Amino acid sequence: MQSELTLKGECARKAARQLAILDTRTKNRALKSIALGLLRNGDQILEANKKDIDAGRAAGLSDALLDRLLLTRERMEAIARDIDSVIALPDPVGQRFDSRILENGLQISKCRIPIGVIGVIYEARPNVTIDVSTLCLKSGNAVILRGGKEARESNQALTRVLRESLEGTGVPAGAVQIIESTDRSLVGEMLKAHQYIDMIIPRGGAALHQFARDNATIPVITGGIGICHTYIDKTANLKKATEIVFNAKVQRPTVCNALDTLLVHRDVAVDFLPTIHERLKGAGVEFRCDSRALSILGRDPSVRPAGEKDFDTEFLALILAVKIVDGIDEALSHIQQHGTQHSDAIVTEDYTNSMRFVQEVDSATVYVNASTRFTDGGQFGLGAEVAVSTQRLHARGPMGLQELTTYKWIILGAGQVRE
Amino acid sequence: MQSELTLKGECARKAARQLAILDTRTKNRALKSIALGLLRNGDQILEANKKDIDAGRAAGLSDALLDRLLLTRERMEAIARDIDSVIALPDPVGQRFDSRILENGLQISKCRIPIGVIGVIYEARPNVTIDVSTLCLKSGNAVILRGGKEARESNQALTRVLRESLEGTGVPAGAVQIIESTDRSLVGEMLKAHQYIDMIIPRGGAALHQFARDNATIPVITGGIGICHTYIDKTANLKKATEIVFNAKVQRPTVCNALDTLLVHRDVAVDFLPTIHERLKGAGVEFRCDSRALSILGRDPSVRPAGEKDFDTEFLALILAVKIVDGIDEALSHIQQHGTQHSDAIVTEDYTNSMRFVQEVDSATVYVNASTRFTDGGQFGLGAEVAVSTQRLHARGPMGLQELTTYKWIILGAGQVRE
Repeated sequence: MQSELTLKGECARKAARQLAILDTRTKNRALKSIALGLLRNGDQILEANKKDIDAGRAAGLSDALLDRLLLTRERMEAIARDIDSVIALPDPVGQRFDSRILENGLQISKCRIPIGVIGVIYEARPNVTIDVSTLCLKSGNAVILRGGKEARESNQALTRVLRESLEGTGVPAGAVQIIESTDRSLVGEMLKAHQYIDMIIPRGGAALHQFARDNATIPVITGGIGICHTYIDKTANLKKATEIVFNAKVQRPTVCNALDTLLVHRDVAVDFLPTIHERLKGAGVEFRCDSRALSILGRDPSVRPAGEKDFDTEFLALILAVKIVDGIDEALSHIQQHGTQHSDAIVTEDYTNSMRFVQEVDSATVYVNASTRFTDGGQFGLGAEVAVSTQRLHARGPMGLQELTTYKWIILGAGQVRE
Repeated sequence: MQSELTLKGECARKAARQLAILDTRTKNRALKSIALGLLRNGDQILEANKKDIDAGRAAGLSDALLDRLLLTRERMEAIARDIDSVIALPDPVGQRFDSRILENGLQISKCRIPIGVIGVIYEARPNVTIDVSTLCLKSGNAVILRGGKEARESNQALTRVLRESLEGTGVPAGAVQIIESTDRSLVGEMLKAHQYIDMIIPRGGAALHQFARDNATIPVITGGIGICHTYIDKTANLKKATEIVFNAKVQRPTVCNALDTLLVHRDVAVDFLPTIHERLKGAGVEFRCDSRALSILGRDPSVRPAGEKDFDTEFLALILAVKIVDGIDEALSHIQQHGTQHSDAIVTEDYTNSMRFVQEVDSATVYVNASTRFTDGGQFGLGAEVAVSTQRLHARGPMGLQELTTYKWIILGAGQVRE
């Protein structure tokens, strides 16, 4: 008997071959049909979601988790609007690049093509089901989804509507497969299903990423985990620095591009630290300080000495680790040692230091005089993102439609042979 | 006690950080020093190589293998010339691309950077030691080499000269590490050393590739294995077809881009098959034919019925599998089923079929009216290649300097924060 994964893997593989050669108009029409289908079947989806919410509440899920799980009429409308944005994005498939004509007359170019079948392993948020499916579909990829068991009813309702909406559009319904089994061993099976899946995107915590990397025989895109630094250099404009740090820490503290560690040049610490502390304290931020910062900020309920792990923690909360450094060299070596290659920033008016920071910090996104909160496919003009990669191959940083493609070389000849 | 890999991994990691920020002039000067060092120390290298050859002969290595192992004065000079070619190539590191200015004034761009530390696992050919090292060095990567035990003395002599040549050039000698232990378990250890190695390139047979894919926790670039097809369409110019097939099969049959399977449209088979058979037979090619081709070519010592595995074999020899197909659909589905996504060609004068072949064949390189033998970094104008990738992520087809880089996003601001 075939396992669920084998069965759905074969369907996805078959659909991927059909999807790869569809034109943009057909794919956009299917996306529009999904957007309309979601709105038309809102009641049915919200009903399924209510079951997940009730079960989650009974199981004692935190309020934060329940909120991530929750769908509402407004959220459904936002999801449908996001699909309209994906429709508006240019289709990367078929784009030619790096074209040249060789001396022997051969015309060679690279042509963007879909990767094939994308496997996505994610947790509670049911909107990921639609976001990922529509981005994969637009870029000509089939997708195999494995959502969290907390969102089981919601995900099934969403994919049912999604597949029904594909009927008659020319896009095969097999393009979106959802794994229904909640058996944990299935994740391990997915990671080794290289005959069916070409790329795995784990969306979850560090443990999931490490499990994926250690067990997969398929390329894994790890990411979405960021211990983000901002270094306030000696010459920083402290007014800008205050706004940048406040924004990076407070605007949305629960996400991966939020600020975790503030590094401050010793020569400006006495000026800057009390100002930023005053500002952030008002927003409820707790400071975890090294000894030098502690001696400046002194006693206050919002100021605590940093513990051993505070400079190696992604807080995802209103907590800020603070360290005073002797200069850019110490800042760079701190980031190299404690960073996660996600998003790091310098605030400076010094040209040479800005250039050094940009060159020497080895992160997916490196900022001068701006908030790390910009690390996002939408903000970068990619339209949407499927993940933020912090690994080194294929793609780094926000991954949009183009990063869901690969390429082949096309060589057009007139009978050329090699000498 | 630290293992050899841990020790060398740490050195490579440290060297990679220094290499990443070297300017092109310094790297080119180091490459020139290596080229001169190899010529100056030719005797010492040839002496070491003689030990490998003697040991190989005593161990009963085949003549083909001994030839791949052999270094001569002329081959050393060719290697030195190849280094000069690498010097002449543009340095990809630091190139900016996909630049744009966002509405809020943020200047964002991608900047090419080295991948970091490349691990290469290879077999008998000692020239790979120099080819790979110089390409990695030019692209700012450190490299950890694990050569075959047959080439042990040669590889040690080559890397000794290489590292001596780096002295005083500004390039750290730690940039090139060679694993001296011939313990097989070390390959497994390398595949999991993700704290030291960012990308693994296995250069060897299918078994090595599968072992790497199944055991690595590091991204693996598989490739270099090609069951290459050429399909002769109904409208093919048969004169061109003859030259293309002859070249693809005979010009260098032992390499991965050589032709393995010839597919012929039934309507031209009676004309084409006897012609190409006559031509290839003269070059010593053996035909392995399906029943229809057999009935055309009839009895001849060079014609045999195809066995069960012949359409799934990379021959690397003067053997050609031949099949008659009813048209392009059958050709496409044969390639889909039996291909290895390396190099496949159509010979046709039909516009629609040429477009279909290019779109529907999912190989790293797809040809119209040209020999598959062109799949090569040098031929494609990349200057040199470190491998031919047949996997889908990061790079497909010939991998040159650019494919040894990744990128980071650089965002230059003036105090921007996210709304």
